[in-house]
Amino acid sequence: MSSAPSSVGRPRSGSRRLPSASAREEILDAAAELFAQRGYAATSTRLIAERVGIRQASLYYHFDTKEQILAELLEATVRPSLAHAASLGDLSPAHALESLVRFDVGVLLTARWNIGILYALPEIATEPFTRFRRERDELRGAYRRLAGADVPGDLVFGLVESVIGMRRDVPDLPPVPSMQDTVAAAALRITGAR
Amino acid sequence: MSSAPSSVGRPRSGSRRLPSASAREEILDAAAELFAQRGYAATSTRLIAERVGIRQASLYYHFDTKEQILAELLEATVRPSLAHAASLGDLSPAHALESLVRFDVGVLLTARWNIGILYALPEIATEPFTRFRRERDELRGAYRRLAGADVPGDLVFGLVESVIGMRRDVPDLPPVPSMQDTVAAAALRITGAR
Repeated sequence: MSSAPSSVGRPRSGSRRLPSASAREEILDAAAELFAQRGYAATSTRLIAERVGIRQASLYYHFDTKEQILAELLEATVRPSLAHAASLGDLSPAHALESLVRFDVGVLLTARWNIGILYALPEIATEPFTRFRRERDELRGAYRRLAGADVPGDLVFGLVESVIGMRRDVPDLPPVPSMQDTVAAAALRITGAR
Repeated sequence: MSSAPSSVGRPRSGSRRLPSASAREEILDAAAELFAQRGYAATSTRLIAERVGIRQASLYYHFDTKEQILAELLEATVRPSLAHAASLGDLSPAHALESLVRFDVGVLLTARWNIGILYALPEIATEPFTRFRRERDELRGAYRRLAGADVPGDLVFGLVESVIGMRRDVPDLPPVPSMQDTVAAAALRITGAR
C-alpha cells in the first residue's frame, strides 16, 4: 500500500496504529490521543506526525492547521448524536429523549479517546470551531425540544456531557449499558416524564 | 498602602483591579480572568504581572510557579462547598443534598471568573494539583454519601458542575437563585428523594 501512487506523502516508519485506517484517520487518531492526554497546547503537528510515523509535510497534505484537526475531532463527538436526534420523529418526546440520551452517552463513553474533555478549551470560541459550536448548539436545541423547555433540556444536556468527566475521573465506572440506563432514567426524572 | 513596608515588590502602574485586595488577591484575580478567557497555556506569569501592574519578580515573591496560582484558584472552587458539606450533619440526607446542591451551584455561578472551565486541563493530573484533586474527590464523596449510592451521587455531582459549561455557553441563563432551585429539584428527582 505504501507504494501505491495514491498514497501521497505517506512513506511510513514503524507499524500502523489502526490496521485498516487511511492516513487521514491515523492522523486524527494520533491527534485525539495526544490532545486528550497531553493537552491541545502541548501537542504540535510535528509530534502528531511523529506518532503516526509520517513526515510533518505529509500531515499538512491532509490538514492545513492543528485547529482543523481538533475541529474535525470535536465535530465527530456531536454529529452522530445530532443525526440520531433527527431520526426520532415518530417517537413520543419522552421516548425520543430516552433514546437520544442512551445514544449520546454511548458515543461519549465508547469513543476511542475522550475528546469531549476538550470542549472547555478557550480556543473553541474562535473561528475554526464555528461549525462545531453550531452543531453542539443544535444538539442542545434537540434536548431542549425533547425536554419541553430550555432549562430542563440544558440540564439533561449537561448531565449527558458529565459522563465525559466521569470517564476521566471516576475509577471503576459501571459498564456502558448500565451508564446508558442510569443517565436515561435520570434524564426522564429531571424532565418529570417518569 | 503602596508605601507601607510590608508591600514587598509592589511598585504599581495604573489603578487597582480590586480596591481592597492584597497583591496576592490581585494576582489571583488577574490570573483567573486570563486563564478563563485566553486559556492556561496561552497565559504567562509575565502577562499576569503586567495585568496587575507589578513586575514579574514581584509575582514570584507571592507564587513560585504558574501551576501554584492555578492550583489555588481551582481549590477555591471546591473548598467552600466542601466546608458546607461538612456542616450539614443535622439534616436528613435529602435536605442535606438539596442544601449542598444550592450552595455549590451558587459558588460556581457567582465566582468572579468561571474557573471551573479549567477542570478539564490535562495538567490537572500532575503533582501540583494533587491537593485539588483530593478535595474535588472529597466533594464527589459527599454527593455520593448524600445520594445514598455512587452512581446517582456522581450524576448529581456532574449535574451541578454542568452549570460551569452553561455559564459559558448558554446566553440568557436564568438568574442564580432560579438555577439553584432548578438544579436542586433535578438532583432530588435523580436520587428519587422527590
